[in-house]
Amino acid sequence: MYEELKKRVYDANMLLPKSGLVKFTWGNVSERDENTGYIAIKPSGVKYEDLKPEDIVVLDLQGNIIEGNLNPSSDTKTHIEIYRAFPDIKGIVHTHSTYATSWAQSGRNIPSFGTTHADYMYGEIPCLRNLSKEEIDEDYEKNTGKLIVEFMKDKEVTKIPAVLLKNHGPFTWGKDAFDAVHNAVVLEEVAKMAMFTESINKEAKETPKEVQDKHYYRKHGANAYYGQK
Amino acid sequence: MYEELKKRVYDANMLLPKSGLVKFTWGNVSERDENTGYIAIKPSGVKYEDLKPEDIVVLDLQGNIIEGNLNPSSDTKTHIEIYRAFPDIKGIVHTHSTYATSWAQSGRNIPSFGTTHADYMYGEIPCLRNLSKEEIDEDYEKNTGKLIVEFMKDKEVTKIPAVLLKNHGPFTWGKDAFDAVHNAVVLEEVAKMAMFTESINKEAKETPKEVQDKHYYRKHGANAYYGQK
Amino acid sequence: MYEELKKRVYDANMLLPKSGLVKFTWGNVSERDENTGYIAIKPSGVKYEDLKPEDIVVLDLQGNIIEGNLNPSSDTKTHIEIYRAFPDIKGIVHTHSTYATSWAQSGRNIPSFGTTHADYMYGEIPCLRNLSKEEIDEDYEKNTGKLIVEFMKDKEVTKIPAVLLKNHGPFTWGKDAFDAVHNAVVLEEVAKMAMFTESINKEAKETPKEVQDKHYYRKHGANAYYGQK
Amino acid sequence: MYEELKKRVYDANMLLPKSGLVKFTWGNVSERDENTGYIAIKPSGVKYEDLKPEDIVVLDLQGNIIEGNLNPSSDTKTHIEIYRAFPDIKGIVHTHSTYATSWAQSGRNIPSFGTTHADYMYGEIPCLRNLSKEEIDEDYEKNTGKLIVEFMKDKEVTKIPAVLLKNHGPFTWGKDAFDAVHNAVVLEEVAKMAMFTESINKEAKETPKEVQDKHYYRKHGANAYYGQK
Repeated sequence: MYEELKKRVYDANMLLPKSGLVKFTWGNVSERDENTGYIAIKPSGVKYEDLKPEDIVVLDLQGNIIEGNLNPSSDTKTHIEIYRAFPDIKGIVHTHSTYATSWAQSGRNIPSFGTTHADYMYGEIPCLRNLSKEEIDEDYEKNTGKLIVEFMKDKEVTKIPAVLLKNHGPFTWGKDAFDAVHNAVVLEEVAKMAMFTESINKEAKETPKEVQDKHYYRKHGANAYYGQK
Repeated sequence: MYEELKKRVYDANMLLPKSGLVKFTWGNVSERDENTGYIAIKPSGVKYEDLKPEDIVVLDLQGNIIEGNLNPSSDTKTHIEIYRAFPDIKGIVHTHSTYATSWAQSGRNIPSFGTTHADYMYGEIPCLRNLSKEEIDEDYEKNTGKLIVEFMKDKEVTKIPAVLLKNHGPFTWGKDAFDAVHNAVVLEEVAKMAMFTESINKEAKETPKEVQDKHYYRKHGANAYYGQK
Repeated sequence: MYEELKKRVYDANMLLPKSGLVKFTWGNVSERDENTGYIAIKPSGVKYEDLKPEDIVVLDLQGNIIEGNLNPSSDTKTHIEIYRAFPDIKGIVHTHSTYATSWAQSGRNIPSFGTTHADYMYGEIPCLRNLSKEEIDEDYEKNTGKLIVEFMKDKEVTKIPAVLLKNHGPFTWGKDAFDAVHNAVVLEEVAKMAMFTESINKEAKETPKEVQDKHYYRKHGANAYYGQK
Repeated sequence: MYEELKKRVYDANMLLPKSGLVKFTWGNVSERDENTGYIAIKPSGVKYEDLKPEDIVVLDLQGNIIEGNLNPSSDTKTHIEIYRAFPDIKGIVHTHSTYATSWAQSGRNIPSFGTTHADYMYGEIPCLRNLSKEEIDEDYEKNTGKLIVEFMKDKEVTKIPAVLLKNHGPFTWGKDAFDAVHNAVVLEEVAKMAMFTESINKEAKETPKEVQDKHYYRKHGANAYYGQK
């Protein structure tokens, strides 16, 4: 019944290995269907070379499986918490992409060092704390989602489309699954260049605010003039 | 009417993703036509996989569109300022290539560490300052061009075919669009090796002037003897 | 007689260059046959592009050649020592993969910086000492195996599926040849991200134990829930 | 007349871009013919994608062109000086490969950090000094060859098959053109891992001499036992 949604989510998932963001099964993409409110997500532990559109699992936002014979991604509860809190988020991606994950492992926010970053993301990319033993024992994946929601709840999800989970890796989101994948690719390149920037100059400074504003708002919002109408 | 020019600019643009210098829409190439004085440039925000020769936009040096249905690159005014100031420049490239952009983000000039650099570029590659808030508000892209022109006005554009814009990325130029792309590839490799050089030896010294001279002038000028006649 | 075993070991060996883990002849994979107890291993110094399934050498655990016309890998005695000590190990891989080898050359254990590591390997990846001149002169390859066995003898080989040999490179193992190759790929990615993590933050801390436990045990053991049943 | 020699030198040259060691025209391979004593070398400034076997230039050891319509590599005199001094050298390669060149630019010898290095090269890879202004003005390429010869004259060319030229890049050699290319690939990988090794541990120590000896001599000399007979 959800052929189109499953095909989209399959296609978006297949972009992850194609873009060099995942090895083996290390990543997953989901999307929310506007009409039903259901989400579709990669099944757990299935290799990308074996993945087929019919393997994609459809669930409601209480986590009930609506369609699909496989277990959904072990990170499904994290996705669901985010979807429940932010109606504007329609696609979510989790990867262990090399450079973004290295920043997550370092425990540092990614500074906004250039216009490549400012074109898509407003300000630094936050690295969120580890969960406590109690939060892990209670419900690791759900509480990971709650941590992200708690952090983002007073921020604009379109302006900060990515967070890092300490000692783990990135989550990105967007207006659909493909937009979330696009942000995952941007994040990885931004993370790589930020590491190189500090390698070249340990005292490198963030982009002046007026330059960040110029680049972000020439691409986003009412006065954007980048691209075609 | 400008089929050949547009095809050349299309081909030169397509070399950017092929050479690994751009992701998504992050880069543009233009060329100046010797006869008409018009320039042709990539349209704004069009993905390279979708780009076609007929999408290339032809403009005069006042920025009027002569031919083309799409918006030209958002960086068009920067290109135009450079073409107006330097008749010897016939091709211009802007990218966010990883290593050159990391140097731009670091705010440092790229030292001339070896003969790979000296074979094409005479002396260090300058990193120009950020624009002020006033310059950004007045006309960001035009004033970016003016900054480059101001810096280069008492220098030889063939000897310094590249600059970095702080917190942004590189501009390169050349005697046509393909030469400008060639310089963009050289710059990226030189930027990569310069970062590695300092990683190996923080106190690394620039190439002695007599070696730089030897390499630059065996490839360029009246006494060049590299290559075939 | 051992066609299937040799074909498996051939296939597993060919994954090494395909995964970017080896250049030239720098690596070898072996597997133990459950029924006979024999092992099959790559021949010494044969280039991967020339390797054929019939070149694979079958030996018993005393090092006698059971089938094959070529010399077995010069590291065969190391493999044999490991197989003799640990019945659970059914596949072994040795490579000079770039990042894992760089850690081995640095003489340091690889810290457990993230869940990519914790998903497969419990705690840091140990870097073992150099052999002494006496051990080298007596029997270099056999004593290399003994060093690994000595280190692992009071540990669980499934929880630490990799070691580094100082100034040399990694050995990984698994429940068959393909599992051992999988661990070699994981190790290389983990080694790369660990180097980047410390480049970003020299004071980076290891993953808290409760997060390591959560990730390792959601993938392994009685309460694992990752993947499909 | 020298079809076979030219074909071999063409094939060896084409391995450079295939192995990722050169961009554009940045590299050249030559080989000495045992019977005539002539050498064959890449023509100067010809792009690899345009190179054909018939473009290869044959010269005698006085630098006279025996066969060929193109100018030989601008580095030909360097090759000739080396061939004249060392009868055992039958193939020579020059590249600007990224990591070896970065070491050359850093002005440091490459330490012998591991068995990958010790398997092929005995001890550290030397970085030779810059030429003086007088040496450059007199004959840059010939004096570059003399510098290499002077350094190597009391050493075994099979045990040190590579040197770095400060602020320039590597030269490697071997028993024929393909062996010299093989050494160029080994050098690049060794240079990369040495940089990473020091990034991981600034105080990393060279491989103990007894391990270097073991690895070098299990592959080379009368008691070698690596590979097939």
